[in-house]
Amino acid sequence: MSDNYITYPEPLILLNYKAMFNSELKSILADEHLSVYSLLRYCMGWEDINGDKISSSSGKRLRPSLCMFACDAVGGDIQSAIYASASIELIHNFSLIHDEVQDFDEIRHHRPTLWSLYGSQKALLAGNIMHVISHDIFRLSGDREFYHFRPASKLIGNACLDMIEGQYLDILYENAQSITIEQYLRMISLKTGALIRCSINLGALIGTTNRDIQNQLKISGESLGYAFQIRDDILGIWGQEKTTGKPVGVDIIRKKKSLPIIHAMNANHGKYSLELREIYQSENIGDFQVNRVLEIMDNVGTLEFARQMTKKYTKKARVAFLNARLNDVHTKNYIALLQFLMNRDY
Amino acid sequence: MSDNYITYPEPLILLNYKAMFNSELKSILADEHLSVYSLLRYCMGWEDINGDKISSSSGKRLRPSLCMFACDAVGGDIQSAIYASASIELIHNFSLIHDEVQDFDEIRHHRPTLWSLYGSQKALLAGNIMHVISHDIFRLSGDREFYHFRPASKLIGNACLDMIEGQYLDILYENAQSITIEQYLRMISLKTGALIRCSINLGALIGTTNRDIQNQLKISGESLGYAFQIRDDILGIWGQEKTTGKPVGVDIIRKKKSLPIIHAMNANHGKYSLELREIYQSENIGDFQVNRVLEIMDNVGTLEFARQMTKKYTKKARVAFLNARLNDVHTKNYIALLQFLMNRDY
Repeated sequence: MSDNYITYPEPLILLNYKAMFNSELKSILADEHLSVYSLLRYCMGWEDINGDKISSSSGKRLRPSLCMFACDAVGGDIQSAIYASASIELIHNFSLIHDEVQDFDEIRHHRPTLWSLYGSQKALLAGNIMHVISHDIFRLSGDREFYHFRPASKLIGNACLDMIEGQYLDILYENAQSITIEQYLRMISLKTGALIRCSINLGALIGTTNRDIQNQLKISGESLGYAFQIRDDILGIWGQEKTTGKPVGVDIIRKKKSLPIIHAMNANHGKYSLELREIYQSENIGDFQVNRVLEIMDNVGTLEFARQMTKKYTKKARVAFLNARLNDVHTKNYIALLQFLMNRDY
Repeated sequence: MSDNYITYPEPLILLNYKAMFNSELKSILADEHLSVYSLLRYCMGWEDINGDKISSSSGKRLRPSLCMFACDAVGGDIQSAIYASASIELIHNFSLIHDEVQDFDEIRHHRPTLWSLYGSQKALLAGNIMHVISHDIFRLSGDREFYHFRPASKLIGNACLDMIEGQYLDILYENAQSITIEQYLRMISLKTGALIRCSINLGALIGTTNRDIQNQLKISGESLGYAFQIRDDILGIWGQEKTTGKPVGVDIIRKKKSLPIIHAMNANHGKYSLELREIYQSENIGDFQVNRVLEIMDNVGTLEFARQMTKKYTKKARVAFLNARLNDVHTKNYIALLQFLMNRDY
């Protein structure tokens, strides 16, 4: 059984605002004074290892797009959301750089990762520089943006703390005997959800003072975070190498406690629990074991379960957004984004 | 030849303000909600690995003390400097946690380091949490402190960027064939100097609007940064294990490009340069090689050279402070601090 991909066109939300925050990000990271900045530009997908400009695919930029969109959708001035969007994207990239070091990931978006080129010491420092800049960004801003500074900094700071706590739980869970789906959901709501919901919250906060609208968008962002990570977990097991850039079953090989394995361990009253645990306790997981895990997941309907979970949270995200009663074009665009994210193959 | 230590009493600057910023730091890190905070309290020296309170030596807390002192000395309200002091101390600790991971240091202040107890993944995350909190601290502050936020955040942000760039250069230099003393001085002025001069700058900025006083303290802080790191480099070669907690010649074993080795390589028209380079290129440095390096340093007068450098910068720091014409008690206390730092054995 494999996941049948339906190709959706890239949604407008991921296209409309890109030029604005990209130009801001590029100017922030243009520093020629400090030598470590060239690593950051490589990491953002703008330069190759020699420092020559490239036009590469540089990720979806989901988070800053969500922030700009939320500000736009609630009727705000999107110019005011640029700094916040850039800040969030830098936090996301800082965390990716550190994650790659810790997970020994050698490839991201079909390019060698920073640590695989420069070694882990320099990569960690580059990540730290990006982290500083992300928090530091508001001091570059004009007074208009600075007005939002305190509440925005609170949201971003808390999202950062939550994200790192989630990463910490993720590591704790790697060695845990069994994890419940509830524990898993709490972990992803921190690790992945925090920054995604912060993106939407922040855009809404900057764009409107209407508490009710802010609240509905917050609920929507929360659900989107779950849906996004569960789709990631699906791709971590059944994703195709040519689109994800990672081998099939990569999360099995890495023994990640992602939703599919937690489901398979707990399904059918734990029928396969012992066998799966034994596989996950072996030093190395080879093709044979990957196939056996996939077989068990087939037997207990794991993919269908995970898809239903994605659907459930995508629906929640849609309903909350509809409850905010924003204009039709924005609503249509958001629903198209949800469709795309739920079905994406990268 | 060994360094003859004269024991100086702990200077008042390191004692007078401790209770104030410690109480702030403790309340900031008291969070029971996130599990990773217990690692931070361990790292600050307040708790043992079981989370039980301990009364341990927790480092000199030089940077926050300098910040509070500078504010006090220029006639400011020291209450206003507490948040800034706490922020700087957290940045310092974040960078120590990450450094220890990268250098495989197993001991700090006679206690096992965080990564040696919890593994490097968790230690890096704990460092990142501390980093977030350090930038995030002003949103906890009252309006009085927030008034200083923008300039203070600029100073702290820039100091952080400089510090990390310095750490980056330090890594680059490890594999460089030869480093000049000028390159070395630039590197330490970033790696160590940035945060120390920021501490003094920030206190002066919060405490007074007098540009001339701010400027003299800035110059003094800059020189103090050099003196401090060069003393550290002396201790890295000739420090005694019972006071530093590290073996004699630890920086030789680790092949650090610190001032003594740079001096020895360049001294006597590079007479020993080839031999030293060969030793530093060997895979492991044993007792025999450590002793040979020490012998060469003796021959070329490295310790005396390094001591003279410490003296020179300590004098500059004193002169600049005197130029600020602050009150006698503060001036006396600052000079006592400089004496202590120049002669410290830990």
